[in-house]
Amino acid sequence: MIRGRVVGRFWATKRIEHIPSGAFLEIEAAGGGRMIAFDVLGCGEEEEVLVVTGSTAASWLGGGKIPIDALIIGSLDEPGKTDKPKSK
Amino acid sequence: MIRGRVVGRFWATKRIEHIPSGAFLEIEAAGGGRMIAFDVLGCGEEEEVLVVTGSTAASWLGGGKIPIDALIIGSLDEPGKTDKPKSK
Amino acid sequence: MIRGRVVGRFWATKRIEHIPSGAFLEIEAAGGGRMIAFDVLGCGEEEEVLVVTGSTAASWLGGGKIPIDALIIGSLDEPGKTDKPKSK
Amino acid sequence: MIRGRVVGRFWATKRIEHIPSGAFLEIEAAGGGRMIAFDVLGCGEEEEVLVVTGSTAASWLGGGKIPIDALIIGSLDEPGKTDKPKSK
Amino acid sequence: MIRGRVVGRFWATKRIEHIPSGAFLEIEAAGGGRMIAFDVLGCGEEEEVLVVTGSTAASWLGGGKIPIDALIIGSLDEPGKTDKPKSK
Repeated sequence: MIRGRVVGRFWATKRIEHIPSGAFLEIEAAGGGRMIAFDVLGCGEEEEVLVVTGSTAASWLGGGKIPIDALIIGSLDEPGKTDKPKSK
Repeated sequence: MIRGRVVGRFWATKRIEHIPSGAFLEIEAAGGGRMIAFDVLGCGEEEEVLVVTGSTAASWLGGGKIPIDALIIGSLDEPGKTDKPKSK
Repeated sequence: MIRGRVVGRFWATKRIEHIPSGAFLEIEAAGGGRMIAFDVLGCGEEEEVLVVTGSTAASWLGGGKIPIDALIIGSLDEPGKTDKPKSK
Repeated sequence: MIRGRVVGRFWATKRIEHIPSGAFLEIEAAGGGRMIAFDVLGCGEEEEVLVVTGSTAASWLGGGKIPIDALIIGSLDEPGKTDKPKSK
Repeated sequence: MIRGRVVGRFWATKRIEHIPSGAFLEIEAAGGGRMIAFDVLGCGEEEEVLVVTGSTAASWLGGGKIPIDALIIGSLDEPGKTDKPKSK
């Protein structure tokens, strides 16, 4: 999964069929780079989220013809990241 | 999904079977880099679009033997992007 | 899909089962980087092609145990690329 | 598969359904870059692991609606890496 | 597919279930970067190989719960690469 931060939102009135209810949010990945992920949790700007990509995103939404390849699966409680240098 | 801009179009008369009706458009991703996406919406040059990649693209088109791995799923209404620095 | 140019060919006598008839061609992507794609169209060196990647390639070839994840789906008629700067 | 080192852990109380029991661990890939992988082995910080990505991760966990695209499949016994220069 | 060279081997005694018989080999891609691929051909160090990635690797191995996303499908007979500059 990719860890990132919500930085924007997009709308697409002209669209293909079978896009479910939800929002297209722009995510800035923790390591750099941006992507558009589908959101059904109601995430807001600056929220830190986990994004799943690929056909797994469509499968969760019901599979078949659903054309979504990136889905927010959760909002992070707290960073809690540690990165201690490896002791020799 | 990838956000990008339509910058060109390609034709391939010599092709394998099972490619559906539509156009091969060149997309310049918002973060840099280019790819060829399949278009069934009739998008034109300079249009800002969302592209889904992987087997999800083929599934929307009917799955099975359809050899397409990138599909334009919508045209963006407006950028609407915000990127406020995180307040501490 | 990836747009690229055929730059070489490889043979692998020592191989696993279920590889169909065709050629392993080296492709130089338009944006840089190289990959090996499977070819059933008989493409030659310097030919500009479109390559589909992932499980979609195997599905076109029949799916199941076919171990191919990159397939040339067409040969480009002409570049036709335009990249006009966005007018404000 | 990606080889990496566990460098952190994340929690997401606000989450979508169908996430199985396990931990979200942050992995630093051997070649650089970070990702979040799902762990069912009980790996700890600094542990060297192998991570499988894509729909294969969800399939192992039961497939269907499971929204996981990165899974730790093993913990490395020892590096054992060799990289002798190619003799001409 | 990715072309690369075998540069190491890893063992993982602590592992999840459903990993078939074979070896975890480290591959250095021709264009740079390293990955771990599963090997059932008995490849040795310095051998030049082709690697298939994604769910296609698991499908060849039997699919279902097999947690492998990179598989060596062949060993190259000879480089045979040519890269002539495009004549105008």
